[in-house]
Amino acid sequence: MSPVSIPRIVQVRRNILKRNDEVARALRLRFAEAGVFVVSLVSSPGSGKTAFLEKTLTLLNNGAHHPAALVGDLATGNDAARLARSGAPVRQITTGTLCHLEAAMVENALADWSLPDLDFLFIENVGNLVCPSSFDLGESLRIVLLSVTEGEDKPLKYPPIFHGADLALVTKLDLADAVEFDGAAAARNIHSVAPEMPILYVSSKSGAGMNDWLDRLLALRARSTTSATTEP
Amino acid sequence: MSPVSIPRIVQVRRNILKRNDEVARALRLRFAEAGVFVVSLVSSPGSGKTAFLEKTLTLLNNGAHHPAALVGDLATGNDAARLARSGAPVRQITTGTLCHLEAAMVENALADWSLPDLDFLFIENVGNLVCPSSFDLGESLRIVLLSVTEGEDKPLKYPPIFHGADLALVTKLDLADAVEFDGAAAARNIHSVAPEMPILYVSSKSGAGMNDWLDRLLALRARSTTSATTEP
Repeated sequence: MSPVSIPRIVQVRRNILKRNDEVARALRLRFAEAGVFVVSLVSSPGSGKTAFLEKTLTLLNNGAHHPAALVGDLATGNDAARLARSGAPVRQITTGTLCHLEAAMVENALADWSLPDLDFLFIENVGNLVCPSSFDLGESLRIVLLSVTEGEDKPLKYPPIFHGADLALVTKLDLADAVEFDGAAAARNIHSVAPEMPILYVSSKSGAGMNDWLDRLLALRARSTTSATTEP
Repeated sequence: MSPVSIPRIVQVRRNILKRNDEVARALRLRFAEAGVFVVSLVSSPGSGKTAFLEKTLTLLNNGAHHPAALVGDLATGNDAARLARSGAPVRQITTGTLCHLEAAMVENALADWSLPDLDFLFIENVGNLVCPSSFDLGESLRIVLLSVTEGEDKPLKYPPIFHGADLALVTKLDLADAVEFDGAAAARNIHSVAPEMPILYVSSKSGAGMNDWLDRLLALRARSTTSATTEP
């Protein structure tokens, strides 16, 4: 064995990631050309991704906007059925035993959709605080959710997924008192792995924080559209 | 390409799993010879594995029993520090970017422990509802935890981890009313992927269900010791 040889498993993993990055780069270009702002959601299972997304889709799907969603799970089409109640186009991606979405799955799921007819696309990843970290999906904004019931320590225990996100969303705020949630500790832990990351606080149940979230989302999309059209 | 060739990534994965099974088999034999009953815990992050385990260790570590624990996380030694408050020997395994424990990590972590001095060993896996499924750790009992705050649908969305466990533990029972937990739906979903799996309900906070759990644990160990000694 040569001293610089790479173990086979590492090499295979690198090839997968390289291929994924190529597909993701092509997707990102397509999304920009079509004027679709793409947001992905990652979190542990049961952090409230689907509830938050259903609320977001319902609020956006008011005639002024044209959102759509892809949702990943190992099994079942339950989440797509829940999200479809918003009236937005939704498609389930089932991954079998895979613990994350890959860019090629997103590409396949979009194959017969007309991207220029959309302005927002949400991609709900498989509930997992580890696997999705390394896989770019071509999104413009990656949100990591942390529910108040999970414990304030999760950012310290799963640094890559917090480090790789653009925005942290603390969910299930309505349960904060019941679980004696320490918001200052959660923010401190998030910022220790992702300094200056913006943090929003929401309750999909009560609706608290949803207007702030929508304002920020619309502003982000407006900014991305402006920068895309002013670039040569 | 021959029609029966196996893709390289599948082959690498099979080799890893085969090697893991060999180490796990050797561990299981060592545990049986030493009279240690080994329980592993799997769940999504924040389901309450550490709180439940701290309570269990504290209740067992009363002079009559000699429990110990290994705990896996990507980063930090926080959980080991929490569990050590019970007075039991505890060791943290940090996995870096890996989303599960493997049998070899357990073997290494135990290297300088005298197994015959213990009667219970608990192995808390990395919080993940996917990755730990395929990795045997040599345990006698694998418990999957589902907190009431995660949603009753999780067994349907993550079938392998529920299917591969021996016992389901519904945790955070004290929050059941606040989240309108539907216990019948949760049990139905667990049994649809793991028919007849025993389900226990606990709250580490209030202590509810902990005596039932300890009774069952002691009975399981007694049965395993008896069957080990009566076998030729």
